[in-house]
Amino acid sequence: MDARRRDEIPLADSLAERLARGDVFSEACPSREVLRNVTSRWGVLILVALRGGTHRFSDLRRKVNGISEKMLAQTLQTLEQDGFVLRVAHPVIPPHVEYSLTPVGQEVSRRVEDLADWIERSLPQILQARETAQTRAV
Amino acid sequence: MDARRRDEIPLADSLAERLARGDVFSEACPSREVLRNVTSRWGVLILVALRGGTHRFSDLRRKVNGISEKMLAQTLQTLEQDGFVLRVAHPVIPPHVEYSLTPVGQEVSRRVEDLADWIERSLPQILQARETAQTRAV
Repeated sequence: MDARRRDEIPLADSLAERLARGDVFSEACPSREVLRNVTSRWGVLILVALRGGTHRFSDLRRKVNGISEKMLAQTLQTLEQDGFVLRVAHPVIPPHVEYSLTPVGQEVSRRVEDLADWIERSLPQILQARETAQTRAV
Repeated sequence: MDARRRDEIPLADSLAERLARGDVFSEACPSREVLRNVTSRWGVLILVALRGGTHRFSDLRRKVNGISEKMLAQTLQTLEQDGFVLRVAHPVIPPHVEYSLTPVGQEVSRRVEDLADWIERSLPQILQARETAQTRAV
């Protein structure tokens, strides 16, 4: 990540073919938008939740404590458009819609889960560092 | 991450001592706020930038393409209060302020960089998956 070649990246129509590598530090690079979507407030939690397997909308809503129906639908749609989440609607009555990770979604969610997992495991240490920082600031 | 013990977590004043492990799926758990701060739009990029070493404010501003002075100051302050970033103001004229990662900041930023790095490396593949998803949606 050190050798950033911001000026050398050719931004053209066929981005997928011409970009050898993204650059999240460059405003114009599509990798920044991808990063924002997978690290959005709810995107992170939905990606981690889906690592547990295929979920129905209502299952996800229960698992991701505090999310509204609207935000869940919006975030799933963004992740679906980015190619990370697969939405399958079974043609039955009542409607049965399932969400799962695509192969590339599995890949990205693994890194997101590593981060969330580290934060969960390190929470006592983090809260201690936060206390120290806030004491210093007084 | 599978064995979530949401109901067993004792939420008390001395969180640092009593929490064995956080739970980002629980709205009340402080790990969720930490996750939000380190995955905020600019938090991610600042954490990755600081992995290159100590930076002055103006250096960070240049590196993180597109950030405003206000957002850079706000995000640095949040990361400082969370104990991830150390701010050192040298008592000289003109003022000389430096930012670096704390030990716990090094730890968290490593995971954030892994994610950003994966996205940069996989961008062609991601853009391909996105195209496929959007074609399917039409």
